[in-house]
Amino acid sequence: MLKVDLNCDLGESFGAYRMGRDEEILNYVSSANIACGFHAGDPSTMRKTVKLALEKNVGIGAHPGFQDLVGFGRRDISMTPKEINDLVLYQIGALSAFVKAEGGNLAHVKPHGALYNMAAKNKEMANAIAEAIYQVDPELILFGLAGSELIKSGEKIGLHTASEVFSDRTYQQDGTLTSRKEANATITDSKLAAAQVLKMVREHKVKTIQGTELSIRADTVCIHGDSEHAVEIAKYISESLVHAGIEVSRIKR
Amino acid sequence: MLKVDLNCDLGESFGAYRMGRDEEILNYVSSANIACGFHAGDPSTMRKTVKLALEKNVGIGAHPGFQDLVGFGRRDISMTPKEINDLVLYQIGALSAFVKAEGGNLAHVKPHGALYNMAAKNKEMANAIAEAIYQVDPELILFGLAGSELIKSGEKIGLHTASEVFSDRTYQQDGTLTSRKEANATITDSKLAAAQVLKMVREHKVKTIQGTELSIRADTVCIHGDSEHAVEIAKYISESLVHAGIEVSRIKR
Amino acid sequence: MLKVDLNCDLGESFGAYRMGRDEEILNYVSSANIACGFHAGDPSTMRKTVKLALEKNVGIGAHPGFQDLVGFGRRDISMTPKEINDLVLYQIGALSAFVKAEGGNLAHVKPHGALYNMAAKNKEMANAIAEAIYQVDPELILFGLAGSELIKSGEKIGLHTASEVFSDRTYQQDGTLTSRKEANATITDSKLAAAQVLKMVREHKVKTIQGTELSIRADTVCIHGDSEHAVEIAKYISESLVHAGIEVSRIKR
Amino acid sequence: MLKVDLNCDLGESFGAYRMGRDEEILNYVSSANIACGFHAGDPSTMRKTVKLALEKNVGIGAHPGFQDLVGFGRRDISMTPKEINDLVLYQIGALSAFVKAEGGNLAHVKPHGALYNMAAKNKEMANAIAEAIYQVDPELILFGLAGSELIKSGEKIGLHTASEVFSDRTYQQDGTLTSRKEANATITDSKLAAAQVLKMVREHKVKTIQGTELSIRADTVCIHGDSEHAVEIAKYISESLVHAGIEVSRIKR
Repeated sequence: MLKVDLNCDLGESFGAYRMGRDEEILNYVSSANIACGFHAGDPSTMRKTVKLALEKNVGIGAHPGFQDLVGFGRRDISMTPKEINDLVLYQIGALSAFVKAEGGNLAHVKPHGALYNMAAKNKEMANAIAEAIYQVDPELILFGLAGSELIKSGEKIGLHTASEVFSDRTYQQDGTLTSRKEANATITDSKLAAAQVLKMVREHKVKTIQGTELSIRADTVCIHGDSEHAVEIAKYISESLVHAGIEVSRIKR
Repeated sequence: MLKVDLNCDLGESFGAYRMGRDEEILNYVSSANIACGFHAGDPSTMRKTVKLALEKNVGIGAHPGFQDLVGFGRRDISMTPKEINDLVLYQIGALSAFVKAEGGNLAHVKPHGALYNMAAKNKEMANAIAEAIYQVDPELILFGLAGSELIKSGEKIGLHTASEVFSDRTYQQDGTLTSRKEANATITDSKLAAAQVLKMVREHKVKTIQGTELSIRADTVCIHGDSEHAVEIAKYISESLVHAGIEVSRIKR
Repeated sequence: MLKVDLNCDLGESFGAYRMGRDEEILNYVSSANIACGFHAGDPSTMRKTVKLALEKNVGIGAHPGFQDLVGFGRRDISMTPKEINDLVLYQIGALSAFVKAEGGNLAHVKPHGALYNMAAKNKEMANAIAEAIYQVDPELILFGLAGSELIKSGEKIGLHTASEVFSDRTYQQDGTLTSRKEANATITDSKLAAAQVLKMVREHKVKTIQGTELSIRADTVCIHGDSEHAVEIAKYISESLVHAGIEVSRIKR
Repeated sequence: MLKVDLNCDLGESFGAYRMGRDEEILNYVSSANIACGFHAGDPSTMRKTVKLALEKNVGIGAHPGFQDLVGFGRRDISMTPKEINDLVLYQIGALSAFVKAEGGNLAHVKPHGALYNMAAKNKEMANAIAEAIYQVDPELILFGLAGSELIKSGEKIGLHTASEVFSDRTYQQDGTLTSRKEANATITDSKLAAAQVLKMVREHKVKTIQGTELSIRADTVCIHGDSEHAVEIAKYISESLVHAGIEVSRIKR
């Protein structure tokens, strides 16, 4: 039976600031990427989100980002590979403590925002992140953009990796995502989004903006949790997969 | 043979800001309390300090504090026990990752500054801290002020505890430290400081400001690392102990 | 004609985090207390909120708080009067620059959350805040709890003050607000809230929890902006005042 | 009589962290660039440094930087021009309040670290900074790298500018500073540093790494305050200028 993982960024509230409908979204995804307090999240939000994920039997991942709360981790910051390594290790450790305290196991790590995007292209950064994960626990699964430097670094170092694809983003002929600055960067029609996911999971292919077909590996599909209709989209994508006979389940090593 | 632990707060540098002569002090202490990024320290400083401590075979402890960098964790902040619990757990987890990455084991936890002082008197805070430590690893040793609520909470919950005494602070008849607002709060003469330590370790007694003798348990002696002559004092106390036939060694469970 | 000011805390969004329906609330209040980046707000939010307030011809005030974003400035922090003075001055200055850049004038200062509550009772803190305001501009109006130490400090130092009352909080016989820990601390019925305001403005009296009547000065009424029905309540209170022949207008020196 | 300004970055301490020998350096410079709390400095340090500068009759400038304390403002952060504008305005405002409270006048603004370097080359960032300064006070003097985009933006918008040169950095044929990654980036011999300054001030020329002579405008000379011998170097450069008959004095509009 075909399987695929659905993942979503969660635990992004901060103090009095609420973000995301975590509890509802957790009904439709199989992996949760939990913010670790640097670009979003705080200790109490982390604990609460870990508990929720365990209750819903969803795989728990650390979601480390740049230390840039006001920029939500979406702005490039020039850091050395050494600093990146320490930054990521710190955040994985912090989340791990909550997972351990609540009786669970940390399953994966997915870098956030600008850290994710920079590491997709920059080999040194990709290595620094993969090394941090390996150092803390070589059994952790690294989530990264399908075809990225990050996935390559993870494989080289001996990590289990999960190639991530997007339901609501369009692809370029070279395998990169269309820049959000372009008008056709996102797919807003849920049906088209679900169709793109089905094609990627069943045929390992995606239709690019240029009209060509591109080979793509789809281990896990990113569901954006911060849009207005995030819950509805998560539900729709999840149900479309199930209806097509594809099991939504977290990645097993 | 009599034994006692000497501990010191280390890893308090932050980014471009240097604090303490960590490398030298590590020659004279048996336990290092490493700042975890909230009141002092940053990921790269944590990594570096963990490495140094492992090289010198010094016991590594997490040193969690309030999230108050500008106040160096020395200012009271009113937090709920739940928030305190999460705050401490987060910081222990972050440091643990570096210890694990460098091949060591986390040995103990000692709260910092205002968190330490508040938890010495406040039962709810003390419980919140002891619970956080127990949740992350029941084998961790809790360092707290001798006779404090924190030590009581630790024992009640089943943690191994280490009663801490001070070489350079005077004691009140009720077992508390003389407030730093008082003129006679500190002992600046190294000989007197060493003598106080020897008496506490050998006789389990300390002479109070009021002239009486007080029973005190001295498992570990705090050496302040941020004074001008910190290294010299650490050396002098350490040598005085050795000369008196007392072994300076980290606490074994 | 009777007049009273309606004020509301605004500009509390932070980066990607949204809080409050600022634009709508500005239709019903005459003074805006704008967060200055320490407990809430960020430079871009401050600019945007200042612009909105100027467009709506609403009086602009600085709303300084403790440097505690995760606690939203609601937690007591033990700071020296000197530190409090510098903390407040900094934040007033930061907001002033945006007001100046947008062609307006800063009208008032109202401390936020724990800083407001602590300064209501603590004379030294009250003086530190009043002095900071006076140092930056003696023409600024100090908003503080009616009958508080903060109002007394402001008057003593020569500031114009505005005594603040609450529409949705109950009062104790000694003039303090009923603690939020008590069941009867808040007034949730808009009609009762409006009635309390009318009584305070017209008769300078408030009925206490104990059933007695208390003299109270009501220069400005606080409208909470962060509740679910904040806009509706602001509208209701504003209309009740106008209907009773009371002008809602900002305080003139 | 020839004149030149000597400027130094000051007020970079943060809470318990000390940096720089501000009080001594202030004896030899005519302009102080005071950190504003984002990359370094805190409210109490700002107040203290402003007081010192006023006592020594040194020109006071705001020294805004990226919000990156752990990176000391030395790391590039990708921000929009709008965000840069707000970032700079905020920090100028904060420092202004202390200058006003202490009875002085803010004289200039010099961006710090990565913000300075990025704005030297990036026209949009340069404009955003120049506009922020102009918005808060068109009489403020903008300090920027001689020949940079920042100076051009300042002039275009109508600000008085001061072209900054470096005593201890070598120059490339195109007028840029040699990258610190190169071995010959810095001049460590005080005599050579002083000679470079004298040539720039008297002949408006600097000898480049390539051996050619380059025209350069030298209104103000940067003295680094964070090196070990900063005070001695400041003293030596200052005395060399005086000995050569050049007056060290702050820039007058």
